[in-house]
Amino acid sequence: MASGNARHAGKRAAGEVRILPIAVRGEIRAGESLSARLLAAARTVGLRFQVGDILVVKHKVVSKAEGALVALDEIRPSAASRTWARRYRLDARVRELALRESRRIVRRKRNVLITETRHGFICANSGVDVSNVDGGKHAVLLPADPDRSAAKLRRELKKQLGIEIAVIIADSFGRPWREGLTEVTIGVAGMRPLVDYSGRRDPHGYSLHSTVDAVADELACAAGLVCGKLAGTPACIIRGYAYQPGSSGARELIRPAKNDLFR
Amino acid sequence: MASGNARHAGKRAAGEVRILPIAVRGEIRAGESLSARLLAAARTVGLRFQVGDILVVKHKVVSKAEGALVALDEIRPSAASRTWARRYRLDARVRELALRESRRIVRRKRNVLITETRHGFICANSGVDVSNVDGGKHAVLLPADPDRSAAKLRRELKKQLGIEIAVIIADSFGRPWREGLTEVTIGVAGMRPLVDYSGRRDPHGYSLHSTVDAVADELACAAGLVCGKLAGTPACIIRGYAYQPGSSGARELIRPAKNDLFR
Repeated sequence: MASGNARHAGKRAAGEVRILPIAVRGEIRAGESLSARLLAAARTVGLRFQVGDILVVKHKVVSKAEGALVALDEIRPSAASRTWARRYRLDARVRELALRESRRIVRRKRNVLITETRHGFICANSGVDVSNVDGGKHAVLLPADPDRSAAKLRRELKKQLGIEIAVIIADSFGRPWREGLTEVTIGVAGMRPLVDYSGRRDPHGYSLHSTVDAVADELACAAGLVCGKLAGTPACIIRGYAYQPGSSGARELIRPAKNDLFR
Repeated sequence: MASGNARHAGKRAAGEVRILPIAVRGEIRAGESLSARLLAAARTVGLRFQVGDILVVKHKVVSKAEGALVALDEIRPSAASRTWARRYRLDARVRELALRESRRIVRRKRNVLITETRHGFICANSGVDVSNVDGGKHAVLLPADPDRSAAKLRRELKKQLGIEIAVIIADSFGRPWREGLTEVTIGVAGMRPLVDYSGRRDPHGYSLHSTVDAVADELACAAGLVCGKLAGTPACIIRGYAYQPGSSGARELIRPAKNDLFR
């Protein structure tokens, strides 16, 4: 990877990791090729993919390209959703859709609805979101199978570029105990989302036990620094991070119910 | 900030964010000046701090410099801690210390102990850790007041360099529902840890409500990509991210109990 990176690098510090934004002009429409749009956008700013690069894409453009949109006018909210929406001055149709997209309600209190999605992710409103779509006419859902979406992007990039690019699809989730959203990985292809240090020894000879880093989520967060909520930058390249190749997918990031103390 | 960054930048993409590792040789000892060690280490690899830079430091070197270490030989574990340790083949003294450093037990099940620390952080074992210290003789605690530690580092860097550097102190925490550790900010100086988009409108005119990004945690995660568990790289510079100046500290990242659905 190092040689591939060095070629176009300019002045770089040893071990440097770079986050290179890919701004995309205009909307992504259902049925469009996301890989073609991202490659064109990268070319526009003089950015070339290199061996070892990780492409991080916000889920919303993936969902849009896949047509995972719902016209809010077609949703008939239940009486319970309508009562709740009146109380908190929110949209009953979005609530209804969030319930429909869930397989389990984790917490429901005041204006907050935390669900487990059909993929197994635990997040607010089943990931249903109305911002950055079309001003309130449609809601965007999570991609049906984000690991499959990531694998498709990776395959298409390989076809176009002739090189292997790792792909991460990211969304912004809240979390217990801490304020603010951070990015998490909901789909991944070409790399292992977790790095396990178990059994490795630190420089003092102390054996690390149960030390596993969620590197895919750290990469997603790094991408969040350039793919802001209002930035028109739905993707970026992370360059210089030596990921471990793998095909486990983002499902590996979901803690099995039996090991979870907070379900 | 842009002008400061451009000077030494070499070939950079527009909007690029860079993560520049600061490797430190040898141990940090109690009473040493951490800022002096980090400045010397940065100089060694030809890295100069610039206006707009964010210094991210792993908490462990902060704790070591502050002498927040406990000799495990001096801990007398309770009978309960000893029973637990025998059962899970872990160290009763570390368990005892974790309980001592906590103000509340959040979950205690099998070999896992989740506590609220006296700072208000919710994490495993009150942040007490034995790895990367001295092979098992001492445990390292969280800094007594990580915001104060960050402010001190920032003050010393300003004195040495004549410029304002934002400082983040990071630790690796687990989280519910998802596997693996990610980096979180436990201390911050010079920048706002949260960015609030409430009331801002997306490009389609849709008003964002309750959208707050925990950018300090995203920066900590980005730093985690170069400050690995075995890397001997306890710090890095993040360059090119336009943070919002502020002095609220990492306490702003702790969700008040009344708003938390998972306590």
